[in-house]
Amino acid sequence: MRAADLEVSIDAAGNIVGSRPGSDPSLKPLLIGSHIDSVPEGGNYDGQVGSVSAIEVAQVLKEQQIQLRHPLQVIIFQDEEGGTVGSRAIGSGLDDKLLNSVSQSGKTIRDGIVFLGGDLNSLTQVQRKPGSIAGYFELHIEQGGTLEQEKINIGVVEGIVGILHSEVTIEGFANHAGTTPMNQRHDALLAGARFIEMVNKVVTSIPGRQVGTVGWIKPQPGAYNVIPGKVTLGLELRDLDANKINDMFARIRTEADEIGKLNGTRFSFSEPTLTHPALTDKRFQKLVDDNAKTLGLTTKLMPSGAGHDAQEIARIGPVGMIFVPSIGGISHSPKEFSRPEDIENGANVLLRTVLVFDKQ
Amino acid sequence: MRAADLEVSIDAAGNIVGSRPGSDPSLKPLLIGSHIDSVPEGGNYDGQVGSVSAIEVAQVLKEQQIQLRHPLQVIIFQDEEGGTVGSRAIGSGLDDKLLNSVSQSGKTIRDGIVFLGGDLNSLTQVQRKPGSIAGYFELHIEQGGTLEQEKINIGVVEGIVGILHSEVTIEGFANHAGTTPMNQRHDALLAGARFIEMVNKVVTSIPGRQVGTVGWIKPQPGAYNVIPGKVTLGLELRDLDANKINDMFARIRTEADEIGKLNGTRFSFSEPTLTHPALTDKRFQKLVDDNAKTLGLTTKLMPSGAGHDAQEIARIGPVGMIFVPSIGGISHSPKEFSRPEDIENGANVLLRTVLVFDKQ
Repeated sequence: MRAADLEVSIDAAGNIVGSRPGSDPSLKPLLIGSHIDSVPEGGNYDGQVGSVSAIEVAQVLKEQQIQLRHPLQVIIFQDEEGGTVGSRAIGSGLDDKLLNSVSQSGKTIRDGIVFLGGDLNSLTQVQRKPGSIAGYFELHIEQGGTLEQEKINIGVVEGIVGILHSEVTIEGFANHAGTTPMNQRHDALLAGARFIEMVNKVVTSIPGRQVGTVGWIKPQPGAYNVIPGKVTLGLELRDLDANKINDMFARIRTEADEIGKLNGTRFSFSEPTLTHPALTDKRFQKLVDDNAKTLGLTTKLMPSGAGHDAQEIARIGPVGMIFVPSIGGISHSPKEFSRPEDIENGANVLLRTVLVFDKQ
Repeated sequence: MRAADLEVSIDAAGNIVGSRPGSDPSLKPLLIGSHIDSVPEGGNYDGQVGSVSAIEVAQVLKEQQIQLRHPLQVIIFQDEEGGTVGSRAIGSGLDDKLLNSVSQSGKTIRDGIVFLGGDLNSLTQVQRKPGSIAGYFELHIEQGGTLEQEKINIGVVEGIVGILHSEVTIEGFANHAGTTPMNQRHDALLAGARFIEMVNKVVTSIPGRQVGTVGWIKPQPGAYNVIPGKVTLGLELRDLDANKINDMFARIRTEADEIGKLNGTRFSFSEPTLTHPALTDKRFQKLVDDNAKTLGLTTKLMPSGAGHDAQEIARIGPVGMIFVPSIGGISHSPKEFSRPEDIENGANVLLRTVLVFDKQ
């Protein structure tokens, strides 16, 4: 970043910020960047592609001696995978509950910030006011297989989906798996199986790109020879439209009651947590789309099914996101891969978008 | 047992054996009994009802000064719940693998035998030869709800079901639950859910009293936001007819392959373990049935869905079993209950059956 003539510092939340002055001191800063942390057993592209491309944009500006009107800030956000911690410090702010939570590393977020060179006493100064930035563009790998499958170069991100989580409990009656006739069972795992298939049907029976997943399930007591008397499982729903998420959840609850009636089991749902969807700016979408097409690339408007730092930055200003293809749609895996030519396309779209935005 | 004039000893396997001589020294011994151990968090009737009733039969013989022709042995088998260990020592014999296995108490079976007063050096002497007994009758609680529901006093047990266990593995592909469209998923848990419902359909779609259960399931990695890439689960099938069990298993395997094709997942089954069914003696069934009816009681011919010591004793001679109602069909639970009048009926049937058998 220093080689690209950025003035580099670490903010109080542990984010790396590289600044380049603009020619018009009345303009707010334009932000570009991404993250460089990874999940355990993750890949080498998620976050890194956008981070290195943002630095490359600064490098090109230096090499070509281009003076932007807006101040430019290249931000490498810390701990995106643990809950967009670095960008959250800038957008929503960090509360004690999050700061004291223990991550998979065994450290608290608080410890992590100190470890990265942050300053716990100045954390609140990192948070920025809505309207304090000109905008934010982020290049990222898709992490899904749509672009590769449809042979499209660039995804123009409509927004980052909202995520609902609810823990579902099914109560039946544990009994001897040998002596209890089939028609006298209140098998909570059979009800859970019907629930999982029903969730799949509800989510796929309506048009759109919403997704729904049951990723974990725990039957009790959990033995070959005991009919499970209780099951807990995790329901997740994602969509760009919070109303659609809530509608699906309501329909799933209603149908769960019907499933419970089939074998005398009872469903209950924990109070759902909902991360609200974050839409990208329509003008930013058009900028990305136009500039990609000018470069001769094909584009597709699409949601981001995964969370990103851009959703936090959307709280303080307009954001845009650029996706490049993930081969096989594989992410959070050592098999994660994006082709060099696709990354080059993405970086060129990012550069051109910054240049064109700066002139408007 | 001593108060009932039984000559009591503990055999080398830790079983309590109470003997009463017969008048005809050429006759083989008649055995009655059950077990007094219980599962953790179990009830007070499973095993105890048959054990106390067998002693009560000896007590009545003493009080009424009845001399049987056959020698009578009241046997209280040890560790029925851990795998019919005491009766197995008499029937199949105990191998080192079983003796060295660690039970839920943390002790090996070997340690348990010593603790109960057995003698590891004389274990093989406990095993009896086929044809060495006149027969064995066991009174037991049903542990299912059929007798209570149909308001029948006495169950005449046809046999003890065979049990098949197989661990099923489903391989799909783990992926991001946000970025992977519904139609591009290889969700092993969705396939597992369809499998559980299919097992229920296969088992309930044919006539008979067979049962099938999936009692445990483990998805991997098992998180809200990851599509499960692998699932293991436990399949159990029970019936009196080993061929029927094998037929159901074959049909389940075939249908599992079809389910796998639906979303590109692959099923594999561990080599199944099969405990073979043990049938009771037809003549013993008729004896129990006739004597119950003579006492004015209603009867029903039925399988035992649970394992019992009688299945081991069936290896060395003819066996019969008498069931009395379990309220609510609840067993292996502190809520296990059988009414005193039902237990009295069962004990009277046991007594009368012993008396009539002895005269034939």
